[in-house]
Amino acid sequence: MRPGESLRRLREERPLVHQITNYVVMNETANATLALGALPVMAHAPEEVEEMVGLAGALVLNIGTLSSQWVDSMLSAGGAANDRGVPVVLDPVGAGATRFRTETALRILERVDVAVLRGNAGEIATLAGIGAEVRGVESIGVDGSPSELARKAAAALDVVASVTGPIDYVSDGELVVAVENGHPLLASITGTGCMSSAVTGAFLAVNREQPLDAAAEALAAFGVAGENAAPGAKGPGSFHVNLYDALAALDPAALDERARFA
Amino acid sequence: MRPGESLRRLREERPLVHQITNYVVMNETANATLALGALPVMAHAPEEVEEMVGLAGALVLNIGTLSSQWVDSMLSAGGAANDRGVPVVLDPVGAGATRFRTETALRILERVDVAVLRGNAGEIATLAGIGAEVRGVESIGVDGSPSELARKAAAALDVVASVTGPIDYVSDGELVVAVENGHPLLASITGTGCMSSAVTGAFLAVNREQPLDAAAEALAAFGVAGENAAPGAKGPGSFHVNLYDALAALDPAALDERARFA
Amino acid sequence: MRPGESLRRLREERPLVHQITNYVVMNETANATLALGALPVMAHAPEEVEEMVGLAGALVLNIGTLSSQWVDSMLSAGGAANDRGVPVVLDPVGAGATRFRTETALRILERVDVAVLRGNAGEIATLAGIGAEVRGVESIGVDGSPSELARKAAAALDVVASVTGPIDYVSDGELVVAVENGHPLLASITGTGCMSSAVTGAFLAVNREQPLDAAAEALAAFGVAGENAAPGAKGPGSFHVNLYDALAALDPAALDERARFA
Repeated sequence: MRPGESLRRLREERPLVHQITNYVVMNETANATLALGALPVMAHAPEEVEEMVGLAGALVLNIGTLSSQWVDSMLSAGGAANDRGVPVVLDPVGAGATRFRTETALRILERVDVAVLRGNAGEIATLAGIGAEVRGVESIGVDGSPSELARKAAAALDVVASVTGPIDYVSDGELVVAVENGHPLLASITGTGCMSSAVTGAFLAVNREQPLDAAAEALAAFGVAGENAAPGAKGPGSFHVNLYDALAALDPAALDERARFA
Repeated sequence: MRPGESLRRLREERPLVHQITNYVVMNETANATLALGALPVMAHAPEEVEEMVGLAGALVLNIGTLSSQWVDSMLSAGGAANDRGVPVVLDPVGAGATRFRTETALRILERVDVAVLRGNAGEIATLAGIGAEVRGVESIGVDGSPSELARKAAAALDVVASVTGPIDYVSDGELVVAVENGHPLLASITGTGCMSSAVTGAFLAVNREQPLDAAAEALAAFGVAGENAAPGAKGPGSFHVNLYDALAALDPAALDERARFA
Repeated sequence: MRPGESLRRLREERPLVHQITNYVVMNETANATLALGALPVMAHAPEEVEEMVGLAGALVLNIGTLSSQWVDSMLSAGGAANDRGVPVVLDPVGAGATRFRTETALRILERVDVAVLRGNAGEIATLAGIGAEVRGVESIGVDGSPSELARKAAAALDVVASVTGPIDYVSDGELVVAVENGHPLLASITGTGCMSSAVTGAFLAVNREQPLDAAAEALAAFGVAGENAAPGAKGPGSFHVNLYDALAALDPAALDERARFA
């Protein structure tokens, strides 16, 4: 893992990260992508998603405020991404909370070759058929350890599973990498999970062949930014502001030093 | 009124507040809900609104960027909420500005049992058939006092009317409670009305039987947070940031002391 | 050019700026409009756009997250605006990146009398038939100077062309005004272009007869606010917060002094 090296490359190449995401976090994931050093674009019209994804280095699909029309666009964009070798990240927001979300996420996984599935433990467990409780978009509890969950979900769903929580676990079905960066304040604002998916897309765009590394490096980078954003924060509002500053200021050498993989 | 006690309970129970709201403020109302201590979820697809509201402690409907499809979802969600005893808040953003908004708000009031109607004076007056001028989403003027307006609207529409302004007035058609908390800077950013509706949903979720109290306590809590956010703010941007910090830092005992009901 | 005088009038009249814009920046453009001193309203339903635009001082159309239904609403609103003499600003976000965006922008220009076309060099060049490269929503390069581009685009499309970049160029097809205000941090957050279009709408609302002046004064005002927001900013997050504070604090006399037209 060399997250600093990847971050350097990302800032040189400035890949376009095409995001079909939810209304709640669009501004936030766009600004996180931009602060890190990549270029965001949001486009969901069936008339343009295939063309737009052709310009992109990665595609991020996020079902946080889904509707049937948007799901159709996600499937079109995902198919076009697969045809062109553009890696796809899926963020199954709220899978487990309603059947529509669970079924939509499974349908995308079935029809699109997803490189990285990034979610919380409850969402990922639901999709892997492991017992879990999800309330709204919050993971309440899962059966078993999150490390094992990441490994099993990756194997079952044939993806890199990226399970975020107090400690993040990323697995390709064999290896499991723990990422021990981050800060509790990240859970105090909405959309930090979605931002970590966008950041995953940006890292994947410059490291298509190694989705396990890209996913883990992305979480380390986002986690270190979260750590740097916490000092001086007086609560979720000021932490949120600091987080963009910290993403923009993230130093590749310091990232390599501070990243905690296990 | 014991807003501090209600806030304590809210933070223990962490009710899910299902919001079908407008595009402009989704991030803001989600973060306000979360900062206060409840869990937000945004879901508008007809395929899932009934199931989602079944998990929720309250439903908040907001017509700020309405379209016919979203109105249908609001009616479905509202009906399901009524069937399950989940209290409903309606925020009739811009009622009075266009016929579509006025008629939609009236249609929701007719078809859904709304516990609390939270709006500005112009919006509420329009719905109660009292003369008013609304420009866009701003109340320009109403006939009569806002206190009387709250009482009359509550009686006419069979709701708890929660009329926000420099002083807020909450009424069940008989009692009128004035809430004298808040700060002028709250009017300097978009979405603070919508946030107060979301906060009303959170208080209502832990006090279903007393919507008058829940609505008044919510406005006191939001108003005190606004007062705490003002010192040090250099304008609307920094006030906005401070507001989330203040909601998260809101102390139940201080809230009881600072709440000004009359 | 008397931007300070226009700003004074804007704050007295508080014109309503009707915006049909993209999901990513709705909160941001609403708050920028409000901070400056005008009133924003977002409304896109076919049932209400014509009525809403009748209340407005200006209409801003922005295709940043377009879909066919929204385009229909933009055309209806644009037609109604023309009928009533309400000036229209078009922000062709991402024109040049996909055919759908390019064609939609051209269709709006053909069917609606647009007063000011505000975009980056790549977007405007694409619409004027001048060679350009656009990646996502970012202008990568254009043929020729941006000053000439503004003049040619204005003449070809029969609009005031407002081309923003390190130096902004505004032209009516004959005169070209350079606006040398602004700050590099404006490019570090998403939606500042969209905000400048909203601000253009606000200035146009109080100066309908002189769209060239209105467009140039708006960019000077927004640029000076950007300059004032930079000191003390630690990155894009804190700059973003400061920007709203700076828009609200913008002093008319200081604006006249600081505006740099050439």
